[in-house]
Amino acid sequence: MTLAHTFAGLTAAPFTPFRPDGELNLDRVADQAGLLEESGVRGAFVNGTTGEGPSLTTDERKELAERWVREAGGRLRVIVHSGHASVAEARELTRHAASIGADAVAVTAPYYFRPGVADLVGFLADVAAAAPRLPFYFYDIPSTTGVLLPTAEVLRRAADRIPNLAGVKFSNPDLLSLQECVNLDGGRFEVMFGVDEYLLAAVALGATGAVGSTYNYAAPVYHRMLAALSKGDLEAARRDQSESAKLVRALIDFGGVRAGKAVMGMLGVDCGPVRPPLRPMTRDESAGLYERLKDLPIFPRPLRKPG
Amino acid sequence: MTLAHTFAGLTAAPFTPFRPDGELNLDRVADQAGLLEESGVRGAFVNGTTGEGPSLTTDERKELAERWVREAGGRLRVIVHSGHASVAEARELTRHAASIGADAVAVTAPYYFRPGVADLVGFLADVAAAAPRLPFYFYDIPSTTGVLLPTAEVLRRAADRIPNLAGVKFSNPDLLSLQECVNLDGGRFEVMFGVDEYLLAAVALGATGAVGSTYNYAAPVYHRMLAALSKGDLEAARRDQSESAKLVRALIDFGGVRAGKAVMGMLGVDCGPVRPPLRPMTRDESAGLYERLKDLPIFPRPLRKPG
Amino acid sequence: MTLAHTFAGLTAAPFTPFRPDGELNLDRVADQAGLLEESGVRGAFVNGTTGEGPSLTTDERKELAERWVREAGGRLRVIVHSGHASVAEARELTRHAASIGADAVAVTAPYYFRPGVADLVGFLADVAAAAPRLPFYFYDIPSTTGVLLPTAEVLRRAADRIPNLAGVKFSNPDLLSLQECVNLDGGRFEVMFGVDEYLLAAVALGATGAVGSTYNYAAPVYHRMLAALSKGDLEAARRDQSESAKLVRALIDFGGVRAGKAVMGMLGVDCGPVRPPLRPMTRDESAGLYERLKDLPIFPRPLRKPG
Amino acid sequence: MTLAHTFAGLTAAPFTPFRPDGELNLDRVADQAGLLEESGVRGAFVNGTTGEGPSLTTDERKELAERWVREAGGRLRVIVHSGHASVAEARELTRHAASIGADAVAVTAPYYFRPGVADLVGFLADVAAAAPRLPFYFYDIPSTTGVLLPTAEVLRRAADRIPNLAGVKFSNPDLLSLQECVNLDGGRFEVMFGVDEYLLAAVALGATGAVGSTYNYAAPVYHRMLAALSKGDLEAARRDQSESAKLVRALIDFGGVRAGKAVMGMLGVDCGPVRPPLRPMTRDESAGLYERLKDLPIFPRPLRKPG
Repeated sequence: MTLAHTFAGLTAAPFTPFRPDGELNLDRVADQAGLLEESGVRGAFVNGTTGEGPSLTTDERKELAERWVREAGGRLRVIVHSGHASVAEARELTRHAASIGADAVAVTAPYYFRPGVADLVGFLADVAAAAPRLPFYFYDIPSTTGVLLPTAEVLRRAADRIPNLAGVKFSNPDLLSLQECVNLDGGRFEVMFGVDEYLLAAVALGATGAVGSTYNYAAPVYHRMLAALSKGDLEAARRDQSESAKLVRALIDFGGVRAGKAVMGMLGVDCGPVRPPLRPMTRDESAGLYERLKDLPIFPRPLRKPG
Repeated sequence: MTLAHTFAGLTAAPFTPFRPDGELNLDRVADQAGLLEESGVRGAFVNGTTGEGPSLTTDERKELAERWVREAGGRLRVIVHSGHASVAEARELTRHAASIGADAVAVTAPYYFRPGVADLVGFLADVAAAAPRLPFYFYDIPSTTGVLLPTAEVLRRAADRIPNLAGVKFSNPDLLSLQECVNLDGGRFEVMFGVDEYLLAAVALGATGAVGSTYNYAAPVYHRMLAALSKGDLEAARRDQSESAKLVRALIDFGGVRAGKAVMGMLGVDCGPVRPPLRPMTRDESAGLYERLKDLPIFPRPLRKPG
Repeated sequence: MTLAHTFAGLTAAPFTPFRPDGELNLDRVADQAGLLEESGVRGAFVNGTTGEGPSLTTDERKELAERWVREAGGRLRVIVHSGHASVAEARELTRHAASIGADAVAVTAPYYFRPGVADLVGFLADVAAAAPRLPFYFYDIPSTTGVLLPTAEVLRRAADRIPNLAGVKFSNPDLLSLQECVNLDGGRFEVMFGVDEYLLAAVALGATGAVGSTYNYAAPVYHRMLAALSKGDLEAARRDQSESAKLVRALIDFGGVRAGKAVMGMLGVDCGPVRPPLRPMTRDESAGLYERLKDLPIFPRPLRKPG
Repeated sequence: MTLAHTFAGLTAAPFTPFRPDGELNLDRVADQAGLLEESGVRGAFVNGTTGEGPSLTTDERKELAERWVREAGGRLRVIVHSGHASVAEARELTRHAASIGADAVAVTAPYYFRPGVADLVGFLADVAAAAPRLPFYFYDIPSTTGVLLPTAEVLRRAADRIPNLAGVKFSNPDLLSLQECVNLDGGRFEVMFGVDEYLLAAVALGATGAVGSTYNYAAPVYHRMLAALSKGDLEAARRDQSESAKLVRALIDFGGVRAGKAVMGMLGVDCGPVRPPLRPMTRDESAGLYERLKDLPIFPRPLRKPG
C-alpha cells in the first residue's frame, strides 16, 4: 500500500460568490468549479467556513448547494456543510442535501450552546438521522465553534448512533486526536485534514484526505508536495509545504477568509465582497496582500494586480 | 431621584415551550405570560438564551414572537432577540419583529465568526437598519457568543451608526464596563442587567433594568430585594440576593437552562423538553433539583414535586 | 449591625520600590507607609500582584516584608503574599512571614502547574502548615494565575485541612462565588474584595474588606463612597465609584501595574521602574496618563505633572 | 543532506527524583542518566516541566543541575531550564548554569505576568545577558505558561537582542509557527520539538531535534520511527508513532507528569513522589496505568507491575 493509493486527494472549500449588493451570485459557481477542475481538485466542500456558510440564510445555503451539485456534474465530489446552531435548521439542510444528490454532508458542533461529548453526539445523531443513507462527517473546527473535545472519542461514540458515519473533517491542531481518528476501528473512517498549512504533517500521520480553503487557488503546490512525498522525497515535500506556510501567514495577517476571497479575484474569479461580520478588504490591504503573494510559486495562473 | 423611579423593573426571558415531540407548543405561552403578570414582571425577552432562541428555526422564532406579542396584550413589554450567526437571518428577524408590533429587538454578537469592535459595530448597524424605528439593544453575552469586548466602546461607536440604539442587555460579569455603559453620554442608554444572581450589585452601580431567566419563576425574591434597597435596607436586600444565589448555584449544578425549564414544570407551567444540544433532565436530576430548591423562600407558588 | 461595623476598611497592595538600577529601594517604604496612614488606609498587602511579588527573588520578598512590618509599627496591618509556583518556596516565605511578626499571609494558586480544586487545597494546606498559627488567606486571582475555580468550594474544603484559614482575598469577577464565600459557614470567613473598580458592588453583597492597588493613592474616593453607603446614600456612593471606574479604565489603557506605579510618582512617592516582563512607561505614556487623571477628584494630594 | 544528518537526536526531560519525604534524591540521577545512555538518548533537559522545575526552589534547581552535569560526564548534552516567573531568579539560574558547565539554557515566558511579544523579548534578553556565551533557547510551552505568541516573531526579534540565541524548544501545537522557526534566517536556529506524540509530523516539517518526557523511558520506539523515516518507510514510521500516541493518551488519562513518573518506577528507576500541586498516584491508578501500557512495544526494559 502506498500513499498514492490511500490519499483521496484535495477538496476545496469554495468561497461563496456575492454580487456587489451582497446577494448570492450563483453564476460565478461555474467559474469556481472550472478553476478547481483545472487545478486537479477532486471535490467541493460547500457552505463551510471559507464559504461563510453560517453567514448565509438557510435558503441561500440550499440554493448554493444545488448549484454546486449541478456544476460539479459528477466530476467533483460535493460535500455540503449542513451544521447550524439550530438542530432543526441543521436537519433541514441535511435532508435537503440528500434530496439534491450531494455526495455527503458534514456537520459542526453547535456553536451557541457549546456541548460536551455526550451532548454533541446526541446533536449529531439527531441531524444525521435526517438523511440516514447519506455519508455523514463530523466537522471538527474548534477555532470557530469554540468546542474543543477529544475527537476520536466523539467519533467512537457517534459510530454507535450514526450508521452512516463516514469520518471527520479535521480542522483542529491536535495531532494526537488526528492519529486516534486515523487508527480508530481499524482505520474505517475517512479523516480529511483541514489545516492546509501543515497538510504534510497530517499526511505523514495518516490523514486520508484534505479539505481546505487554499485548495481553491493554490492546489498546484500541494499536488507537488504530495507527489514528492509519494516518491519518498521528504525534503522536496517540506519545501513545498513551506511555500504554503508563507501563503497562510500572509492570509492570517490580512484577515483570513476575506484575504483568501481577494486572492480569487487576483486569479480572475471575482467572488465579490464578504458578509458582516467580516469586513471588506480595502484597496491598500488588497495591494499589500498581492505584494506578499505575487512571487510565491504556488498558483495555477499568474496573479493579477488588484485594481 | 430615587431607585424606585429609575429602575424599570424585571423582564423575564421565557423558556420556549415544546411538545413532547419537540415541536413548538404555542398554547403554553398564555400560561407563561399569566405567571409573569401574576409575579409582577414587566416584560418578556423572547427567543433569548433561556428560550433556546439559537436552537429554533427562523420560522419558529417568528411564530413564537407573534404569539408573545399577542398574549402580552400591551401588559408586558416584548423584546425580541433577533440575533443570529447570519446577518441576513438577523435582519429578517428584526424586520419581522417590527412588523408584528414588538416593543424592541436585542441582537447578540455573531457567534461563528467572532468579531472585534469595529466589525461587531458594522454587523449590528446592518441588522438595526432593518427596522430603523424600533428600539435596538445590543445583547452582550460573552459566555455563549465567545465575544468579549469592552461594552461601552461598542455602544459608543454603535451610537454613531444606529440612530435607534436604545441600550444594552448586559449579561457579562464585567462591572467596570457596566458602569461605563450606565454613565455613557449622560446616562442616555438603558442598561438591562442579565446576571440574576448578583442583580443587587448591578443596581447598586446604576443598572436601569434587569432581564433574566429566573424572573420567570422567582420574581418575588427580587421584588423584595429591590423594595428593601429602595428603603435603604441593604442588609435585607443582601439576604434576598443570597437566596437567589442559592437558586442559581443549584441551576448551574444541574445544567443551567435545562434545570430552569424543569422548575417551570414544578410551578405547574410545563414547558416540555429542551432541544439538542441541551440534554433532557433525567428523573433523578429533577428530583435532586427539587430537593435543593423546595425550601427556598423565593417562588410565587409552592413547588410541586416532579413525578 | 451596620456596614460601618462590619467592613474592616481598606488595605493597599503597595508597589515595590526599585532604584533606577532595578534593585530594591527599601528606604522608600517609609514614604509609602506614610501616604497610607495619611490616607486612612488600614493595612498593607505586601509582595502581591501590584508589588510585582512574583517578579522578586525569595530573598527580596523577605527583605521587603521585614521592612514593611517595621515601618507599619503596628499602625498598619501587614499581610504578606507568600504564594509561589514552588510549594517549597511558598512554605519558606510563609514561615518567614510568621517569624517577622506579619499579621497574616495570603497565598495564590500555583501558577505553572494549574490545579483543580482538590490539588489546590492540597497545595494550600501544605503551605499553611508552615505557619500553623498565622491567619491564612487564599488569594484568588484567576486573571494572573489562570486558575478559575468555584471559590467557596475551595474555602469549604480548605477549612477542613487548614485550622488557621481566615478567609480569602477575592480578586475575581465572579460575584456569585463572592456571595457564597461571604455566607459560608455562618459568615466566619473574611472576604477581602480585590477589584477596586467595583468595590461598591462587593460591599453591597457583603464583602468584609478590600485589598487593592488604587488604595495606595486614591483612598479618599473610596472612603467617601463607603461613608455615603453607610448613610444610605446609594446615589452618592455610585458617583464616587464611577470616579474610581474612570481611574481604572485609564490604568488599563496604560498597562495596569506599570501605570499605577507612575501615579505614585505623580503623588511625590517615586517607586522607580518596573521589572521585566513589565515594560517601563515612556515619557509620552506618563504624560498621557497624567492628562487622563489630573481632574479626577480622588487623590489625597494634587498630582504633579511627570517631568 | 539526509534526515539522519540533520536531526540531532532525542533529549529527555528527566523527572526530578524525590525521597519519600519530598526532599531531593540526588543519588537517583546516576540511574536516570544510565537509562538514557542505555536508550541511546543524547541529552538531558533538566528542571523542565517534566522535572517539575517550577515546583523546586532555586537552590534545589542548582543542586540538581550540578548533579546532572557531573553524571552526564560529557556523554549527554545537558540543557538547563532556567526560566522563572521572576526575572531575577531566572538570571541567577542562568548564570549558575554557565558556571557549572551546562551546555545550554532554555527559558520559558514568565508565567505570572504574561507578556506580549515585545515584553517577552525584553525579558528573555535580560535573562540571556546573565550568561552571554552560553547557547540560549526560548522554551515555548503555552499550555503551562499561558503565553501563546507567534513563535517565529519572538525568535526574529530576540535574535537582534540575544547574540547567543541558539533556537527554541517548541512545545506548542502550532505547526505553522514551527515551520517558520525552522526556516527562519536560512535555518540557522535549532528547533527542538516537544510534543512527543507527534514527533513524526514535526520531523516531516523539518524540526532538528526533540526534547520530551517520554524519551526518558520509551526512546526505542522513537528511534525505530526515525530510522524508518530515514529509509523512506513512512508507513512503518507512522505505525511506531501511533504506539507513542497510545502511550501519551494513557498518560493524559492518568494525569500527565505524575503518570510518567510512575512509569519510571515500572522500569526500575523509582523517582519517588511528585510535589504539590501535583497529586500522588494512588495504587489503583498505578495499576490501571500499568494495564494500559504493559503490552506496548516501546520500552527499553520490560515493565514491572507496580506493587
